[in-house]
Amino acid sequence: MSELRWNAHLGEWTMTSSVRMERTFLPPADFCPLCPTLPGAFETEIPEPDFDLVVFENRFPSLFDPAPEPAVPATPLAPVRPSHGRCEVVVYTPQHRGSFGELPLDRLFRLALVWQDRYRELGALDFVDYVLIFENRGREVGVTLDHPHGQIYAFPYVPPIPERELQLAAEYHARTGACLTCALLAEELADGSRLVRENDHFVTYIPFAARYPYETIVVPRACRPSLGEMDDPELCSLAEMLKSVALGYDALFDLPLPYMMIFHQAPTDGRTWPGAHFHVEFHPLQRAANKLKYRASVESGAGSFINDSLPEEKTPELRAAIQRALS
Amino acid sequence: MSELRWNAHLGEWTMTSSVRMERTFLPPADFCPLCPTLPGAFETEIPEPDFDLVVFENRFPSLFDPAPEPAVPATPLAPVRPSHGRCEVVVYTPQHRGSFGELPLDRLFRLALVWQDRYRELGALDFVDYVLIFENRGREVGVTLDHPHGQIYAFPYVPPIPERELQLAAEYHARTGACLTCALLAEELADGSRLVRENDHFVTYIPFAARYPYETIVVPRACRPSLGEMDDPELCSLAEMLKSVALGYDALFDLPLPYMMIFHQAPTDGRTWPGAHFHVEFHPLQRAANKLKYRASVESGAGSFINDSLPEEKTPELRAAIQRALS
Repeated sequence: MSELRWNAHLGEWTMTSSVRMERTFLPPADFCPLCPTLPGAFETEIPEPDFDLVVFENRFPSLFDPAPEPAVPATPLAPVRPSHGRCEVVVYTPQHRGSFGELPLDRLFRLALVWQDRYRELGALDFVDYVLIFENRGREVGVTLDHPHGQIYAFPYVPPIPERELQLAAEYHARTGACLTCALLAEELADGSRLVRENDHFVTYIPFAARYPYETIVVPRACRPSLGEMDDPELCSLAEMLKSVALGYDALFDLPLPYMMIFHQAPTDGRTWPGAHFHVEFHPLQRAANKLKYRASVESGAGSFINDSLPEEKTPELRAAIQRALS
Repeated sequence: MSELRWNAHLGEWTMTSSVRMERTFLPPADFCPLCPTLPGAFETEIPEPDFDLVVFENRFPSLFDPAPEPAVPATPLAPVRPSHGRCEVVVYTPQHRGSFGELPLDRLFRLALVWQDRYRELGALDFVDYVLIFENRGREVGVTLDHPHGQIYAFPYVPPIPERELQLAAEYHARTGACLTCALLAEELADGSRLVRENDHFVTYIPFAARYPYETIVVPRACRPSLGEMDDPELCSLAEMLKSVALGYDALFDLPLPYMMIFHQAPTDGRTWPGAHFHVEFHPLQRAANKLKYRASVESGAGSFINDSLPEEKTPELRAAIQRALS
């Protein structure tokens, strides 16, 4: 059973999906559903003895195509709609051990091409308003499969956080004629104290009002609304940047750092969103070598983040970690 | 160093507070800073050999009074302001072991009087726009002190989540002349399938679009904007209800359930908020006996919650657990 239920207090949809209660939970490596299927062995999600990169529909999705009819009666205060969308799994490599950052650049470039393809193809579906590409990394984030992989949710609505960002960007654009993300990037480049890394087409910095001590944002220098507008050199530059940042995170405390990697880009709802500017956010959970940042009542119940460090102090740490990782 | 930094992408303040990096982290019971100070022993935060209930200012706050001058330069896109506010700790009992739910009702009633007093006194300060009362319970939520206690943040702004709730309530009020929370409560009482418990003055139910499998909302039957408008029988009824729900949570899987308990009420910013209706939200992290609900990329990066269970199925479980706990 699955449906979208309206939260009237907060003005947002909750996705219910009881099939997810059954999802595979930390299986042993021999029974990893994201590995290739070896001859005569356990049949995984991928019925091939080898593969390069694979995208398939999540067997335990939150969004469905076709979507079941909602089972709960709706009321004017409690609207319900079908959870019509897609949930895909992107397996980065046939190798069970490893991580996004450790993969060779040519593989990550092909992954960026896959992301671009999925953004275009899913975004072209008439019921898809927003394509969310992300990776949850580490058990502390809630990962239930260790094999290196990411996910894509194709939403039938623009989710609240991107929507808020896009609305503020549109307001700024209406007021000034300029792009907010471009303006923020220009300030960061001029100031320099929070700049983590630059390459040909992308810049990474710790945001001025970072919510997590080691939060970063990866922004294209050119104002690209989405992956759909990027050419191959840009996609390769993106792959190189994300790899460097991910490796830097692991070098920070010499441990596989739990993080969320989230892509924000233009909706695919047919509307115009002036000021939409692609970016990737990393939300790493670590606040020190042996301490996590928790999102407790102040964050989760009030929506206000506490950062117990200063971005200007964490920037040199992260810069040095990336340098160690790449040298 | 501490300040409020503006997140221009999301239109919200982040509180930076480097003093919090030093906060006491899971001390052994003999060195609990929330216990009474025994003669000749370790001096705790409370320099008395015994006490009933204690409220004191957090030594590792996120908001300060007086507040230090911001250390980082502001720009038009990156405003900064002093983190002027108060952070208080509310110690529920001198006993180190125990929990909110296990405390006797007379003590919890006195605690409700303390909450009311703090709401009024902190809310009357000219720099305080919002009084957030909450409890983080359990190490999985991020608690660093096991001694039963709650916290109060007196904010110099209305935080994003209550603000969004209040705006939607005000819009509903403008459109219909009625209170949204009252209307939702009436629907839940009529439907009944998500009703967890009722007493004289309060009703607890699992919200229609619950974000956590065992999420509950505790709502006064009468339209009270805040604790400030409640009389003693109402406060006692609130204490009884919160106690019952907390005990029910622990009975669900026979373990101390990690939860956040968050009070939403009228701001104290001098503005009128039509449709403000006090309520308490419990966000329990458990989704099954040995599994937690994580707020990963879809929740944290897109703001959309996935609930892998149906509120109508979890309601009888929670009802039965409360019955077991109270019998």
